[in-house]
Amino acid sequence: MGLEIEQGCVHLSNIAISETHGEDSPYFAGWKAYDENPYHEITNPSGVIQMGLAENQVSFDLVEKYLEEHSEAATWGKGGPSFKENALFQDYHGLKSFRTAMASFMEEIRGGRAKFEASRIVLTAGATAANELLTFILANPGDALLVPTPYYPGFDRDLRWRTGVNIVPIHCDSSNNFQITPKALEAAYKEAEAMNIKVKGVLITNPSNPLGAAIQRKVLEDILDFVTLKNIHLVSDEIYSGSVFSSSEFISIAEILEARKYKNAERVHIVYSLSKDLGLPGFRVGTIYSYNDKVVTTARRMSSFTLISSQTQQLLASMLSDKLFTENYIKTNRERLRKRYTMIIEGLKSAGIECLKGNAGLFCWMNLSPLLVLKNKVTREGELELWNETLHEMKLNISPGSSCHCSEPGWFRVCFANMSEQTLELALQRIRDFMAKRSRTEKMILKN
Amino acid sequence: MGLEIEQGCVHLSNIAISETHGEDSPYFAGWKAYDENPYHEITNPSGVIQMGLAENQVSFDLVEKYLEEHSEAATWGKGGPSFKENALFQDYHGLKSFRTAMASFMEEIRGGRAKFEASRIVLTAGATAANELLTFILANPGDALLVPTPYYPGFDRDLRWRTGVNIVPIHCDSSNNFQITPKALEAAYKEAEAMNIKVKGVLITNPSNPLGAAIQRKVLEDILDFVTLKNIHLVSDEIYSGSVFSSSEFISIAEILEARKYKNAERVHIVYSLSKDLGLPGFRVGTIYSYNDKVVTTARRMSSFTLISSQTQQLLASMLSDKLFTENYIKTNRERLRKRYTMIIEGLKSAGIECLKGNAGLFCWMNLSPLLVLKNKVTREGELELWNETLHEMKLNISPGSSCHCSEPGWFRVCFANMSEQTLELALQRIRDFMAKRSRTEKMILKN
Repeated sequence: MGLEIEQGCVHLSNIAISETHGEDSPYFAGWKAYDENPYHEITNPSGVIQMGLAENQVSFDLVEKYLEEHSEAATWGKGGPSFKENALFQDYHGLKSFRTAMASFMEEIRGGRAKFEASRIVLTAGATAANELLTFILANPGDALLVPTPYYPGFDRDLRWRTGVNIVPIHCDSSNNFQITPKALEAAYKEAEAMNIKVKGVLITNPSNPLGAAIQRKVLEDILDFVTLKNIHLVSDEIYSGSVFSSSEFISIAEILEARKYKNAERVHIVYSLSKDLGLPGFRVGTIYSYNDKVVTTARRMSSFTLISSQTQQLLASMLSDKLFTENYIKTNRERLRKRYTMIIEGLKSAGIECLKGNAGLFCWMNLSPLLVLKNKVTREGELELWNETLHEMKLNISPGSSCHCSEPGWFRVCFANMSEQTLELALQRIRDFMAKRSRTEKMILKN
Repeated sequence: MGLEIEQGCVHLSNIAISETHGEDSPYFAGWKAYDENPYHEITNPSGVIQMGLAENQVSFDLVEKYLEEHSEAATWGKGGPSFKENALFQDYHGLKSFRTAMASFMEEIRGGRAKFEASRIVLTAGATAANELLTFILANPGDALLVPTPYYPGFDRDLRWRTGVNIVPIHCDSSNNFQITPKALEAAYKEAEAMNIKVKGVLITNPSNPLGAAIQRKVLEDILDFVTLKNIHLVSDEIYSGSVFSSSEFISIAEILEARKYKNAERVHIVYSLSKDLGLPGFRVGTIYSYNDKVVTTARRMSSFTLISSQTQQLLASMLSDKLFTENYIKTNRERLRKRYTMIIEGLKSAGIECLKGNAGLFCWMNLSPLLVLKNKVTREGELELWNETLHEMKLNISPGSSCHCSEPGWFRVCFANMSEQTLELALQRIRDFMAKRSRTEKMILKN
């Protein structure tokens, strides 16, 4: 900033000076390291490969093809609303055509096994805003939401920063593949009680980020029973629901509710977004689907702070209303993600590395804890040392489990859908080289 | 909502159940009355004419023409970024090209008399979010911002609802054309102190909504001296700066700072938007321009909750970088608004109604207090009775001063740029008829 202005005399708010925005974690530090030395096939072949960004680039060609064939969707061509009508549209209900298309897309992703009403869809500029907005509506400052670990590092900002709400972790570990259990739920609840903190809800991500796996039916049933018993809320963040490799492997909380004839549904709120499944994070399209009438009304009012551009609503209303497009996209995208997943899992296996068995998402959950065992440092510090090596030696930015509040050291989230197959192959080669070098060093140490 | 779901057992937050969203004011009630019976030239000629909506429709043809001649701006045509690049772009800094174009547009509106740096521009999805975001950064829950009355009714929601911050009014009245004085500033500050509330800043709108007039240089100097003396912030909401009928009649706080060589500038933050001056409220484009480095950094992080669609950023980056377009638009828009203003002021005068002398905005500030005097009811109740008559007899939705927290009864905000000249003429005719009928009734009463 060029202007010379004296700084620092006037005070800012506690929120402004607090660190609860969470940007100082290795999760974001890794992004910065990538930004400073980004890999490029030709211009910077020894740069850092970004594997810390859950972006879906594998199906972009399908969206591009749609736009080439339907250029009227992006402008104000035949059939659609006029530019003027569109530019003036700022009703916080959002374009009816877009909400209808979203509801139908959400049903399609769930294989038609759940029903969504356009009237319950609240639009927000991304899931980031949707999660914050629900937290404002469900909990008071000082209250808590229970969130299973490991969880998406951004939640520290989204659920806490401006709301003043706490996150109390539900600790999950590898002993049962990081599944949420009634015992873990109860333990987290008790922990909050012991700290004199009121628990207002549970927030799950299904499929889980960073685990890359969908939550099983029995687990969802248990969670719903738990929140009903405690008379608290359940937020189900399902932003990766279209990125499950097979539709049948994903069960939405919406299906459980339908099976229960919507009994106790008023405490359930689903978050969705087009950032991951359609690969459009720049367009800022998020939604809240709530079974609670008062939450729908209040969230809609609150969405005044985070409306979606009507230009973008119009484009996506066209695209998502085209059944030929959505059917093909959903199917092809699932297949391509599965292929990528298989490629990385097998590549890691050939380097001697195991991952949690996954079935969804744009990442896998990689177990490097054996390396920490070898170094006799199965701790957060040991994990961060290893993370530092992956960043500066392997030149890969992956996210350490501790940045996701994982209580068990040695796990890492590795993204695989934000690059070409060639780049992924190179990343795997770097991992294999690193592991081989390590293995040679060990052997030498053992010899001497 | 069709699904049958039992409601009402599970609790929501205090914010969710509070009424500080302010939607229950006559300001919004009038909108609803319009929505139920909207005027249409052919299909509903006796319906309610919407004069409560500050929308600029007078220069749309210029924007439409630009788009016709530059269809590549709306799609991903030659020269611009690819669709993929654009759809993935979610950096909270925003597109460099767009920030640069915004900075330059803001300079152009101010006749080149103030300088703006792209690096200090923070993008938000509309000014609604910009004002809330600044409040989160400048004040703690329970603190106050001082806001001159009458003020935009939406501030009750934007500055208070989720932040927990109070608005303490700076009372202005017709004795000096509603100008802000050092005495009124000091009185408001003292009032807050008496209530044991910490004052963290002053928020002005310049040009003023609802007054439709720009703030004079001397007044701005006084306000800046005041906030410096108290060591508090100044937010200058300048979203109507391009809607001043003559560029020379508007003085931005940025000009005052430039003249003072940016002394004490770190406490000053400007809010801008394209909703009014370009007539694009649906596109959700707001900005914060802060002279405080820490506010810029924090606001940028916080803008994660309210980013602008990259599709929309790209379109507007093209449009606002086109100097031929912006020069002609700004000039023509000013002339057309002035013409409209003259038309309504003279129309009202012919009906015996005076307005505050204005020079900006999409509305005039109409004085119906003589009617309250005649009825011997110069009160808030008298004003709301009269408002009810304007809505149900005249069939015009205008906003009563009390909804803008005006302390003097009888003033109304009348919007004139969201309709055709023909509709405006009809609205004026309805006002003349109403006043003539009233005058006849009075004469009859006097006779008997």
